[in-house]
Amino acid sequence: MLLDSPAVDRLVEGFRRLPGLGKRSAERIALYLLSSHPDEARELAEAVAEARRRVRHCSVCRNLTEEDPCRVCSSDKRDRSVLCVVEQPSGAIAIERGGAYRGLYHVLHGVISPLDGVGPEELGIEALVKRLEEGGASEVIVATNATVEGQNTALYLNRRIAPLGIKVSRIAQGVPMGSGLEYADDLTLSHALEGRTAID
Amino acid sequence: MLLDSPAVDRLVEGFRRLPGLGKRSAERIALYLLSSHPDEARELAEAVAEARRRVRHCSVCRNLTEEDPCRVCSSDKRDRSVLCVVEQPSGAIAIERGGAYRGLYHVLHGVISPLDGVGPEELGIEALVKRLEEGGASEVIVATNATVEGQNTALYLNRRIAPLGIKVSRIAQGVPMGSGLEYADDLTLSHALEGRTAID
Repeated sequence: MLLDSPAVDRLVEGFRRLPGLGKRSAERIALYLLSSHPDEARELAEAVAEARRRVRHCSVCRNLTEEDPCRVCSSDKRDRSVLCVVEQPSGAIAIERGGAYRGLYHVLHGVISPLDGVGPEELGIEALVKRLEEGGASEVIVATNATVEGQNTALYLNRRIAPLGIKVSRIAQGVPMGSGLEYADDLTLSHALEGRTAID
Repeated sequence: MLLDSPAVDRLVEGFRRLPGLGKRSAERIALYLLSSHPDEARELAEAVAEARRRVRHCSVCRNLTEEDPCRVCSSDKRDRSVLCVVEQPSGAIAIERGGAYRGLYHVLHGVISPLDGVGPEELGIEALVKRLEEGGASEVIVATNATVEGQNTALYLNRRIAPLGIKVSRIAQGVPMGSGLEYADDLTLSHALEGRTAID
């Protein structure tokens, strides 16, 4: 309990639920908002509501967007023969930041995880298969995370998409660029060894 | 730019202004709020507005509180002969957490900082002097932060309060220099309170 105030406790709890924020960080933010100019707290609350109101899922790739279809899907500068499947919008954003990828995306908004009750139907994988059946794509790059669920989802996608005559690939897993071997965990290292490629 | 959405940009900017959040953390939080259940974003926005609406300054000690006077000021279990002056509500909260202090508080909501245009009048120091003139207190512990401004404010308070025949002390410099009270651990804080010295 921060102050003798249920309203402040609720505020701290609200911020603690956000990713990356612990108890102390949430308390600091709550106190900051209570001590700052009233406009600041109001503007933050409005920015949250406004973004939720304006941002929706692109009807083609399911990424977050204000306009439907999204900028990537409606661009004539993208390579429509390649489609990259990511778990979350943050994955597509990270790849866009890299600037090397010129294809399209498909956002699952999750991974197959039977223990959490998430199956292919919750991820709209039927919609993805339908999108591919409509033609245009010759390769699907599965860029789900390097977790057990991410791997299982990649295997499931391969099983569904390969029969359409579309190549399915998986992003490479290994030691991050610029990082030393001594910082990599055992699993990453064994994947990096398994996935070794010939030096030309 | 995170997504091609001004509303999301505003949301990220709003979170970046909060203490302890950088660009990446703000982006993660914005994406989380956009992907989570609509209720979660709405509840957070409402928690911010609700806390701002309910929480005010105690008319006696100026700490944040839902009820006026606050729980500490209206308690009959506190030692009314000692008054601890802190810069921010977070300072009073940190000292309460330690559990060793049984006196009252006075919150300045700032420090004397001529460069930022903050003088004694902006901090309500007249109100503090008036509160002390009404009697009851025999000692004022100045627990402003261990910064140049905090020290200068302590010296100014000593100059104003000592003539009233009230002992003015400063918490010991057990608090790391240049750091805020809210980062100190409980033991350091209670040591700092115990080791307070008179201001000459």
